[in-house]
Amino acid sequence: YKIARIPGDGIGPEISEEAVRILSRIGELYGHTFAFTEVDAGGVAIDKYGDPLPEEQLEACRRSDAVLLAAVGGEKWDDLPVDKRPEKGLLRLRGGLGLFANLRPAIIYDELRDACPLKDEIVGTGLDILILRELTGDVYFGERGGDDITYSSDLMNYHDYEVERIARLAFESARKRGKKVTSVDKANVLATSRLWRNTVSRVAKDYPDVELNHMYVDNAAMQLVRNPRQFDVVVTGNLFGDILTDEASMITGSIGMLPSASLGSTKLGMYEPIHGSAPDIAGTGKANPIAMILSCAMMLRYSFDLEEEAQAIETAVKAVLKGGARTADIAAGGKSISTREMSDLI
Amino acid sequence: YKIARIPGDGIGPEISEEAVRILSRIGELYGHTFAFTEVDAGGVAIDKYGDPLPEEQLEACRRSDAVLLAAVGGEKWDDLPVDKRPEKGLLRLRGGLGLFANLRPAIIYDELRDACPLKDEIVGTGLDILILRELTGDVYFGERGGDDITYSSDLMNYHDYEVERIARLAFESARKRGKKVTSVDKANVLATSRLWRNTVSRVAKDYPDVELNHMYVDNAAMQLVRNPRQFDVVVTGNLFGDILTDEASMITGSIGMLPSASLGSTKLGMYEPIHGSAPDIAGTGKANPIAMILSCAMMLRYSFDLEEEAQAIETAVKAVLKGGARTADIAAGGKSISTREMSDLI
Ligand SMILES: CC(C)[C@H](C(=O)O)[C@@H](O)C(=O)O
Ligand SMILES: CC(C)[C@H](C(=O)O)[C@@H](O)C(=O)O
Repeated sequence: YKIARIPGDGIGPEISEEAVRILSRIGELYGHTFAFTEVDAGGVAIDKYGDPLPEEQLEACRRSDAVLLAAVGGEKWDDLPVDKRPEKGLLRLRGGLGLFANLRPAIIYDELRDACPLKDEIVGTGLDILILRELTGDVYFGERGGDDITYSSDLMNYHDYEVERIARLAFESARKRGKKVTSVDKANVLATSRLWRNTVSRVAKDYPDVELNHMYVDNAAMQLVRNPRQFDVVVTGNLFGDILTDEASMITGSIGMLPSASLGSTKLGMYEPIHGSAPDIAGTGKANPIAMILSCAMMLRYSFDLEEEAQAIETAVKAVLKGGARTADIAAGGKSISTREMSDLI
Repeated sequence: YKIARIPGDGIGPEISEEAVRILSRIGELYGHTFAFTEVDAGGVAIDKYGDPLPEEQLEACRRSDAVLLAAVGGEKWDDLPVDKRPEKGLLRLRGGLGLFANLRPAIIYDELRDACPLKDEIVGTGLDILILRELTGDVYFGERGGDDITYSSDLMNYHDYEVERIARLAFESARKRGKKVTSVDKANVLATSRLWRNTVSRVAKDYPDVELNHMYVDNAAMQLVRNPRQFDVVVTGNLFGDILTDEASMITGSIGMLPSASLGSTKLGMYEPIHGSAPDIAGTGKANPIAMILSCAMMLRYSFDLEEEAQAIETAVKAVLKGGARTADIAAGGKSISTREMSDLI
């Protein structure tokens, strides 16, 4: 299995190394070979080549079976214009690899209940929401205008086929879960949201066994706090998804724990933690490698069809948490272990 | 004082009537005369005139000293195109009256702590955030394109002067409060957000006594849940403000209690509850009139400079809550009183 590995910036390189170790162990146990190509993207690529994603780096990803990204960005590059920033490398990866669907599970780890900011009676036990964020359309990829000083514009736009393919994925996913899809938009104001809503409703006709409801984004931002248990699969556009996935992951109190998968129409996917590059703790050995390690599990599942191996990782993570091991971010002030110690245990 | 009163849809007319009663009582006590003109806007105007805000209704608002809006919209009009919906009446009011600043305080009523979804140690006591949402720019008013079926677009745009005036208001407000402004944008991706950030930073130079920090909108959605006490004044664009104000009000657990003010460059402002028209409980006498009543207090303060009278209302509301009176939405399953009984007590 050929994996393009993007260590990126901040704590990225440290946690990316732990991913390699975990996958090597899976290889030993199950008899697979994982071959890694290191790819530069983000701030590190800006510093090396003056470009957050040089074409040959994107090419290396295209030639792989999956991309494993740790984290990109940091304050260091904050003064660059939008088109030259580390984040632009990420957007070009998503666009260039055709990764239109971002899957972000928001799961509560019952072992980590103390880190959850919501009251116990609100979250209940075993909260498990799957958010599907559209990833290659919307205002993220529309035309920019203006000078950033007196006037600026960004075009928000969607084609029906872009909405249709993510909607299908939402209904397919819901079928294997709680059979409920909540589609989030702002159809009382935006034309793109009317298109979104019309298309999702049309696709829903092919899935009569799945319940669909529509929700405005402002209401969704409230409902995630008020009653997160009402959600099973949530599907939404790129910008609303950016906001709601972060809110949802914070609600679980487990943001250092949550992986994500970005998928397209082939098996080539990109896998990365939900958290950022945390430059403030880079090099201190404090980073929590779990989101990165669980991203490997998603890669095994979605790109390589290695379900058993994926579950082996997930089971190991749960066992280690149950055993009481905590990195600083989830130790709630108690005893904590290092990045390396955590991945050793897993 | 000439007040254009917009009862609107759903529970709107019921709570609007209570506003009139409260203001009459203030008039008696303090010797003012409030003269009301009833204005049709929203769904009721669509049903009457086929238009959510006929020009002469907008004119009536322009000729008043303040507008008191209850709530507009409802599922009944959900199938209309974006430009013909009740909400369009609201947007035309905001645009037509030049109300560029939406002030939404997110306050915890310590009497209602049980309704707050966050853990006690997260919200602390006396949480008090003021969110300033820009209200007449952004993707709300940009050009629409497409057919809502195969392709659609909405233009997100900002001029520097639009950002500047709301930024000034944020710094002025912060001066009278905690001296801290958090400006929220998505400057790592959007050109409009670069303009936003550049302009806010420029304006900040005139307020060296106020601390400014910038935050990405996805992070802000997280921080509101993780640590809301870090915020004093938050200033943001129209779309992000829509989402974050709703999230913030839900965090307080007091959404039926929260008023808002929409202000422009003259004294003419519009005042309305944050909550919606709740058609499901219309006519049942269950609606909580407090957000509407507190909106009257904001009107007295901002449009009429009647600070003492404003405080009289706010004090009355607090006293009544302290006395244990609850409408159904805040009764947590306990004994509740009707809309009318609540406003009688106040
Ligand atoms: C870094 C940024 C461009 C990115 C996004 O907005 O998509 C991030 O917030 C994310 O959610 O992956
Ligand atoms: C009804 C709708 C158009 C409106 C908005 O999005 O501004 C509402 O959500 C609000 O926040 O006042």
